[in-house]
Amino acid sequence: MTKIKAYSAKESGADLKPFEIERRALKDTDVKIDILFCGVCHSDLHQVQNDWKNSKYPVVPGHEIIGKVLEVGDKVSNFKEGDMVGVGCMVDSCHECSACKDDMEQFCEKGATFTYNSPDKHLGGHTFGGYSESVVVDEQFVLTVPGNLKPEAAAPLLCAGITTYSPLAHWGVKEGDKVGVIGLGGLGHMGIKFANAMGANVVMITTSPGKSEDAEKLGADEVIISKEEDQMKKHRGTFDFLLNTIPVGHDANPYLQLLKRDATMVLVGAVEPLKAVNGSNLIMGRKKMAGSLIGGIKETQEMLDFCGEHDVVSEIELIKMQDINTAYDRLQKSDVKYRFVIDMKSLKES
Amino acid sequence: MTKIKAYSAKESGADLKPFEIERRALKDTDVKIDILFCGVCHSDLHQVQNDWKNSKYPVVPGHEIIGKVLEVGDKVSNFKEGDMVGVGCMVDSCHECSACKDDMEQFCEKGATFTYNSPDKHLGGHTFGGYSESVVVDEQFVLTVPGNLKPEAAAPLLCAGITTYSPLAHWGVKEGDKVGVIGLGGLGHMGIKFANAMGANVVMITTSPGKSEDAEKLGADEVIISKEEDQMKKHRGTFDFLLNTIPVGHDANPYLQLLKRDATMVLVGAVEPLKAVNGSNLIMGRKKMAGSLIGGIKETQEMLDFCGEHDVVSEIELIKMQDINTAYDRLQKSDVKYRFVIDMKSLKES
Repeated sequence: MTKIKAYSAKESGADLKPFEIERRALKDTDVKIDILFCGVCHSDLHQVQNDWKNSKYPVVPGHEIIGKVLEVGDKVSNFKEGDMVGVGCMVDSCHECSACKDDMEQFCEKGATFTYNSPDKHLGGHTFGGYSESVVVDEQFVLTVPGNLKPEAAAPLLCAGITTYSPLAHWGVKEGDKVGVIGLGGLGHMGIKFANAMGANVVMITTSPGKSEDAEKLGADEVIISKEEDQMKKHRGTFDFLLNTIPVGHDANPYLQLLKRDATMVLVGAVEPLKAVNGSNLIMGRKKMAGSLIGGIKETQEMLDFCGEHDVVSEIELIKMQDINTAYDRLQKSDVKYRFVIDMKSLKES
Repeated sequence: MTKIKAYSAKESGADLKPFEIERRALKDTDVKIDILFCGVCHSDLHQVQNDWKNSKYPVVPGHEIIGKVLEVGDKVSNFKEGDMVGVGCMVDSCHECSACKDDMEQFCEKGATFTYNSPDKHLGGHTFGGYSESVVVDEQFVLTVPGNLKPEAAAPLLCAGITTYSPLAHWGVKEGDKVGVIGLGGLGHMGIKFANAMGANVVMITTSPGKSEDAEKLGADEVIISKEEDQMKKHRGTFDFLLNTIPVGHDANPYLQLLKRDATMVLVGAVEPLKAVNGSNLIMGRKKMAGSLIGGIKETQEMLDFCGEHDVVSEIELIKMQDINTAYDRLQKSDVKYRFVIDMKSLKES
């Protein structure tokens, strides 16, 4: 076991402060990673605030981890010292259930071990995330980061990236499809980039006229202001796919009306109750509303390889570990374009 | 044009009474059908009561029509005098839009011509349904009824049948799948029969313990009483497919929790707003909630052929035309097992 520096919230809603945690000694199949960058996901804030009523304190958030391999266990075959690697939302799963066998560890029937706030099988207590100097992870949950990607901008791929890539890939978005991305935040901006890289005709759907220019810079071919009924009406029944990244409960009916016959809208943000969905918005046109949660490890590697091939990374604002509480305040107000990433040097040098 | 006897409601919620309507003269591609039996669908009652705010009076309901061909136009190639045929919810569509070209006339982009209460392209006014002596329909919307099916019990196949067959077939229900049918009424009882004929392990999901015995007689292998939390919990995450026939707005969340990863629940009844759906019930397990509306003409013929092959018909209570108002009262109270069918002889002899 090694004691290392980290940042944690000691109780619900508390400011994050320096905190010392332990990392396990390297096992045969483990990779020890020197954390260089860690993205700030909105769920970090939810966990700190105990919004989902399952937080365990102290919370050490962070599941968009990029780092360099420091050391590998004797049986590790895919990684060596110095490799640029990533760790996302999960660090372990049962490996035996049908979800794990189907490479969808995020739905592990015994419960995946999430990168933070999950029961720690090795040390007891709960897992601690990437707001820390280093991490020890079984190689099956370590990802290879393509060399051409800027590591700091690649960090958010590990959660925001796979969360948006997975549904676009699973539902087979392809060249020429008309794809709507609803909501322009950390998830939405990745949705635009991926859909664009897949060759789709990408439409940003937002409540904020002020976001049009940015959306187009990110790769949107068109922007719909969802409050403008005329615009929504004009596009009714024309979308092959909708990626709904709205992070809170909302009225999904106007969006369902945008779908073509047999098309699907996938929720990736709102884990909360949606306003009443009219059955007729699904029945008329045999439409589908679905959900999607991050992605499995195999698919996360595919996503990273896709990013390497298509030069896709996140738009980020690099911050110091010491600025995390200000960053959370700004995140609450959606004042970030589009993802904070912590330069972890700042923690080590503190 | 021919004047014939029918039954109509003259205004919202009025009793149905004898009424004279006109049928168009036979065109080249038309089939004139002597109506023998007509099923009583819950939407007949909705239209009479103007529940969907689109009724046109006088309403002559009826879209589960079985009859014998009386006469065919010069260019009719698929039917001849004396054939046992059916007419369902539609009598025409544009034939040109992508939905029509894909054999899904129910979603015709210019609006299918429904069997009653749709604009009548030939006579002006609106179409009149099967609570009448005869009907004239373009042969493309006339179905062949397999000879081994009892005609009166085949009538409800034209709406209740295709409404439940279509989603089961479209989502590929197959031998050994665990299929839940939610709600035991006109639609639900057909859902059980079809899922059973497809070789599925059929589970009836109902609020009413009193329906268990009937459900098993109809082909259900098991019954879940949805009010019993223990039973619902036991089956959580185990269903390959759910056919939700509940005809009114309801809380879909407990049902979504029954689905396996990647599985779908299809709504065929509730065109109304559902209670707030929790995004997490879709996101956790990449589940889908979809809708389905009757089926196209090609699929309706496939369904009838399937029924012929597997000896599937509806459970019916045969009534006289003169008893329709009492039947509506009983339908309101769900007091029918499981479909009223009008013996149209009673109208002709009146």
